[in-house]
Amino acid sequence: MDGWTTETLVRVRFAETDAQAVAHHAAYLVWFEQARVEYLERWAGGYPALRARGVEAVVTQADLRYLVPARFDDRLSVWTRCRDVRGARFRFEYLVLRGGERLAEGWTSHACIDGRTLQPTRIPAWLREAIVRAESERPAAGAEPAAAEA
Amino acid sequence: MDGWTTETLVRVRFAETDAQAVAHHAAYLVWFEQARVEYLERWAGGYPALRARGVEAVVTQADLRYLVPARFDDRLSVWTRCRDVRGARFRFEYLVLRGGERLAEGWTSHACIDGRTLQPTRIPAWLREAIVRAESERPAAGAEPAAAEA
Amino acid sequence: MDGWTTETLVRVRFAETDAQAVAHHAAYLVWFEQARVEYLERWAGGYPALRARGVEAVVTQADLRYLVPARFDDRLSVWTRCRDVRGARFRFEYLVLRGGERLAEGWTSHACIDGRTLQPTRIPAWLREAIVRAESERPAAGAEPAAAEA
Amino acid sequence: MDGWTTETLVRVRFAETDAQAVAHHAAYLVWFEQARVEYLERWAGGYPALRARGVEAVVTQADLRYLVPARFDDRLSVWTRCRDVRGARFRFEYLVLRGGERLAEGWTSHACIDGRTLQPTRIPAWLREAIVRAESERPAAGAEPAAAEA
Repeated sequence: MDGWTTETLVRVRFAETDAQAVAHHAAYLVWFEQARVEYLERWAGGYPALRARGVEAVVTQADLRYLVPARFDDRLSVWTRCRDVRGARFRFEYLVLRGGERLAEGWTSHACIDGRTLQPTRIPAWLREAIVRAESERPAAGAEPAAAEA
Repeated sequence: MDGWTTETLVRVRFAETDAQAVAHHAAYLVWFEQARVEYLERWAGGYPALRARGVEAVVTQADLRYLVPARFDDRLSVWTRCRDVRGARFRFEYLVLRGGERLAEGWTSHACIDGRTLQPTRIPAWLREAIVRAESERPAAGAEPAAAEA
Repeated sequence: MDGWTTETLVRVRFAETDAQAVAHHAAYLVWFEQARVEYLERWAGGYPALRARGVEAVVTQADLRYLVPARFDDRLSVWTRCRDVRGARFRFEYLVLRGGERLAEGWTSHACIDGRTLQPTRIPAWLREAIVRAESERPAAGAEPAAAEA
Repeated sequence: MDGWTTETLVRVRFAETDAQAVAHHAAYLVWFEQARVEYLERWAGGYPALRARGVEAVVTQADLRYLVPARFDDRLSVWTRCRDVRGARFRFEYLVLRGGERLAEGWTSHACIDGRTLQPTRIPAWLREAIVRAESERPAAGAEPAAAEA
């Protein structure tokens, strides 16, 4: 298994649980988004900076696999990496761990759009370079959680 | 008890429940908002029409009393009326019923702001008049649910 | 294109929009869930009845494609059908329309679990039969929205 | 102004914003809940521990004042204290700051219920004592943010 680039810590909120006493399955998309925001903050100056430069990113596709339910107050790690940066498009992949246990995995596809025209626009060169740098400088395998090696 | 002006039907979503197997207490603010939207649609041309005319309404205060929990798939009635229309401000009041049973009540205060300057602005005359008309034309007491008479 | 079985009406709530002024992408999973609840109510006695018989259904996978953004107060139709009913598992497919326009499509996979042991359990025969009946009795092609024919 | 006991850090999620490009007003109730969870974790062994002992706490009332909108990615401090611990009831108060600026304030009232019977039950002595200890040991005024002194 390939390495992961960024770790985001999430603590399951009571409001995110449902009457099955587990985290509702829609909450994972919100955690993925939070992980993207932290990834972009760490590697590319932050999503607000992107928007300030007139670039918006929209979600075009999402895919989730739920393996083991998360529960109220669980501390989760959302590991993130960015792939397939091409033209206007890029893809984020996610792995949700609780300790060494895989709870869920997924990916989301995105397109850059011009904030004014709302038309697709190529990923700005500085953003593409920031992502390439992030993905090549990611922590060596030894720095990653055991479960991510499986 | 005074009369109520508009009834909005809400069906409790599974995503709105929490690990206590009841509707989460923040969901009521979302239902109140939905009730305001239906009120404005019925009596004042709709909230999107308001925004199209450059007027935004913001929430300045909210108050909720939870009496009996709502559960998954419950059919609720949110009764709404508008009060205290003055200057830039107005107030909505809510009563949440399940059948004849009172589950919750609350109110929210609002201010009109100019969509461009984001500064407070007087309620437009046509909106004030629409609300006054709504509140005076509201259904006679006999049209209201028994529980609302108590 | 195959037919669809059940239509669920959704009106985009203001709370479901985000700072891009469109419906947030996680809201679609909540609408899909609401569509499943209405499907099961119409064809299989309702999800609460399922839970009352000791059967829970969990989401094991979800996949969404976002084509055109939905906006505040949009009236959407979520068309639903059930496929691949096998052992403990079944799959729902969704198509989100605004008028004749396709906004999104997706599917979710589910497993039945025993409400007490939380172990996978075969879909009860009555539920399987209800789904088969629903899918064979679905409205003829002529009853469906034009866009769904494309 | 009295002192505050516990500080919880919140970062506004994109999913929490709405089409007015500010944090939706219902999100504050979720942040208040998160602040209670952290308060109880720090001072009383945690809310999961409470539930494990058969005690649930329900929200009976909520009140919020919105002063200045919060925006995407804002870092907020939610200051919390507990008041009016009496019989089955207690009250939390909240102050939401962004840097030195007050964005919102509010309170929520709660009742303890027995997890099995769902009937009101006196606050357990150990919980009452933990709260009294928390409120008397709270940081001296000098440790608090300048804005909280105003």
